[in-house]
Amino acid sequence: MDATPKVALIVGAGDFLGAAIAKKFAAQGYVACVTRRRGKGLDTLVDEIKQAGGRAEGFYSDARDEDQVIELVDTIERTIGPIEAFVFNVGGNVKFDLLETTKRIYTKVWEMCALAGFLNGREVARAMLTRGRGTMIFTGATASLRGAAGFAAFAGGKHALRALVQSTARELGPKGIHVAHVVIDGPIDTEATREMFPEIYASRPADGILKPEDIAETYWALHAQQPSAWTHEVDVRPYAEPW
Amino acid sequence: MDATPKVALIVGAGDFLGAAIAKKFAAQGYVACVTRRRGKGLDTLVDEIKQAGGRAEGFYSDARDEDQVIELVDTIERTIGPIEAFVFNVGGNVKFDLLETTKRIYTKVWEMCALAGFLNGREVARAMLTRGRGTMIFTGATASLRGAAGFAAFAGGKHALRALVQSTARELGPKGIHVAHVVIDGPIDTEATREMFPEIYASRPADGILKPEDIAETYWALHAQQPSAWTHEVDVRPYAEPW
Amino acid sequence: MDATPKVALIVGAGDFLGAAIAKKFAAQGYVACVTRRRGKGLDTLVDEIKQAGGRAEGFYSDARDEDQVIELVDTIERTIGPIEAFVFNVGGNVKFDLLETTKRIYTKVWEMCALAGFLNGREVARAMLTRGRGTMIFTGATASLRGAAGFAAFAGGKHALRALVQSTARELGPKGIHVAHVVIDGPIDTEATREMFPEIYASRPADGILKPEDIAETYWALHAQQPSAWTHEVDVRPYAEPW
Amino acid sequence: MDATPKVALIVGAGDFLGAAIAKKFAAQGYVACVTRRRGKGLDTLVDEIKQAGGRAEGFYSDARDEDQVIELVDTIERTIGPIEAFVFNVGGNVKFDLLETTKRIYTKVWEMCALAGFLNGREVARAMLTRGRGTMIFTGATASLRGAAGFAAFAGGKHALRALVQSTARELGPKGIHVAHVVIDGPIDTEATREMFPEIYASRPADGILKPEDIAETYWALHAQQPSAWTHEVDVRPYAEPW
Repeated sequence: MDATPKVALIVGAGDFLGAAIAKKFAAQGYVACVTRRRGKGLDTLVDEIKQAGGRAEGFYSDARDEDQVIELVDTIERTIGPIEAFVFNVGGNVKFDLLETTKRIYTKVWEMCALAGFLNGREVARAMLTRGRGTMIFTGATASLRGAAGFAAFAGGKHALRALVQSTARELGPKGIHVAHVVIDGPIDTEATREMFPEIYASRPADGILKPEDIAETYWALHAQQPSAWTHEVDVRPYAEPW
Repeated sequence: MDATPKVALIVGAGDFLGAAIAKKFAAQGYVACVTRRRGKGLDTLVDEIKQAGGRAEGFYSDARDEDQVIELVDTIERTIGPIEAFVFNVGGNVKFDLLETTKRIYTKVWEMCALAGFLNGREVARAMLTRGRGTMIFTGATASLRGAAGFAAFAGGKHALRALVQSTARELGPKGIHVAHVVIDGPIDTEATREMFPEIYASRPADGILKPEDIAETYWALHAQQPSAWTHEVDVRPYAEPW
Repeated sequence: MDATPKVALIVGAGDFLGAAIAKKFAAQGYVACVTRRRGKGLDTLVDEIKQAGGRAEGFYSDARDEDQVIELVDTIERTIGPIEAFVFNVGGNVKFDLLETTKRIYTKVWEMCALAGFLNGREVARAMLTRGRGTMIFTGATASLRGAAGFAAFAGGKHALRALVQSTARELGPKGIHVAHVVIDGPIDTEATREMFPEIYASRPADGILKPEDIAETYWALHAQQPSAWTHEVDVRPYAEPW
Repeated sequence: MDATPKVALIVGAGDFLGAAIAKKFAAQGYVACVTRRRGKGLDTLVDEIKQAGGRAEGFYSDARDEDQVIELVDTIERTIGPIEAFVFNVGGNVKFDLLETTKRIYTKVWEMCALAGFLNGREVARAMLTRGRGTMIFTGATASLRGAAGFAAFAGGKHALRALVQSTARELGPKGIHVAHVVIDGPIDTEATREMFPEIYASRPADGILKPEDIAETYWALHAQQPSAWTHEVDVRPYAEPW
């Protein structure tokens, strides 16, 4: 083990994108600390990274729970290493007519998209600021930029997350922390997409759907940027995606 | 009393802008139903409107409380008249460094800016949809479009509100409901502004600060638009405001 | 005749929108000075305004020709009255694949959309600045905000015009000139639309297409705004328009 | 010499950024074809690339002249190799009050920023479309997104260029051509900046100014993206840049 292993924390590594980002950072020598709230995928992901020669640690942690977030960051910083890269990849894409959107749905989606991003971002920033360096990348969506019909809750959460990124980037940039937002515009190739939108697969070429490992390259490129030329927002979409 | 008085509901009429909008709609023949959570200004406002020959009703109601919102809309629709115009004018402008922003602050500001906008908008829409007409106008701010350093909470709430407006405008427009967003870019001439930013008054000409009664004209112009040419977003700022 | 008649100059009054704006300002007591490059509609428009009790003057003038623009503004200011409102309503909506877009097309469209806007705006500003007041409104389009496939030329011209408006609004606002941009998002009800897009008429309700006289209300509302609360950009679209 | 050398064409390689991009692509094995209109820097740049073990060719060519553009692309494609990457890096940043902006300035700046981008982009696209692949990257600026006071000409040209990129990206993306826009927000470290804005250097840390070689990494990263996850717009700015 290195004297000072560098950590990449991926909060919300339950989906294909989070897993691909974790693998990319692990392949670059980072200890991939991957979290999800519950479910079985975490062990598989950690095993895959280790079998590929990388290092990884899995954490079950609720990104919306302030105490759990504080403990997560503290545990990693104390027992594994400094968090040099942080990726917030929690979402909650739902679609409801306005009159069908309950207070519970509206609130839950905001908690997942925005409150969790705020809590994790704040605690990671607290650690990074002691060192004056680090990268924080937040996963956005088409709904970050545009409120389509039926997406009052999801677009609300994603818009709020984008505001967080902008505000944080402006505050922390001059202090050495690189804060960036990736707008993912199009369906990602995942099991969920395959199940929910089979017509998308039927109608598109192979490259017509976002591949997690291709998106992950952009997350890495953001982290690799030099401070004289940081990017704060970048979009990714398949080559044939209408937009 | 008319057989069918038309109601303009202004939620968040505690400040100068809400009051000016209420007066404008009352002057155009609407019953101005004005709400605020607490405080004394409501009676004064209702009296002023009545003394000017208009009609007004005041309601103490917490815009973040689902039950109170449902009751407010129901009471007005049953006992006063159909809500033809609705203005959501609740805000919560605060500034904190990221590390100083508590979960409580972050959540409270979102509840005021976005959750309250959602709850009120949804209930008013429910009533308006039965008639297939009505105008809903939401008050935005510079922070609706841009997350400045120190404004993670406020910009988050305002961004989420803008997403709500966009989503709702797209869903309800084709059903006859006009949904619009007014981006207020600059300080409004209020007692709070005078106390908090005396240097603004010292440095500007008289027209250099947004006058509530001038802004109110734009709210009215939105409501007066014909369906063939509706506006969904409009900005207002003083003539000499840097932007 | 008044001692000091107020002039509203509408450059590009050949279409239905320009005509509706001219009629609106004439109805409010302005001398509507209407221009177009060529064609027969001008006399008809002037006659209609006069028969409605208004005052109007028609000018054949090429908005892209610097000398003609200078002479137009000079003539009006000397012989009719001060230009208090100016509307730039020249366009050139064409669609071509990139490889089919000739240098001539690309240049012509820019000359109509942007160069003409610049020349007219500059000369009108020169006159208005001597008085420290006036309103300049420029007609935009969906293509002002978004470059769709096939619209490299038109979107280029309209984007450039929007940049002109923003830059001019920021420079001249503090000097008392109100500069605004109207983004017209949707088909306008004109003879050309009826001929070119009959399927639009077949598929929409009566209010589903922008009516020139309804749009004109928004131009007037902009001119009527007080300096403490000026709007710099506003969109208009039919209630059922997808966007 | 390879049987099929791959070409990176950088139009506007007279400045530090164009040179840095050329060096980056040359270091990755591309023949860097660099152009500028006139001046002496071209030989030096070609020599530097060759001495570093790369391959480069210099062309004096006026990017605004249709015949010269057609000949440039044709010559490269016939005698050197297929243009796999194209960078358009011509600008013309000037600042003038509106009344001081002559028709000549307004037109010249548009020719440099937009017309040249259109002519070069169209001709390169014509070649790339025969192969169904290639990357086209256009250099933008803060003025691409915002028209500041005094920048009617420059912001107009840059806005029009951005419209070209968007339109072209949407048309050519589905045909395999990756079209992207880099918004450069901040001063670039060049001789001109040092001469024109000495106060910037005095007031900032070393990383506070965009280093051409750091920006060039982002151009390369765009070209390296896989088609399933292409970026169409990305910003770069120094870590401490106010925005």
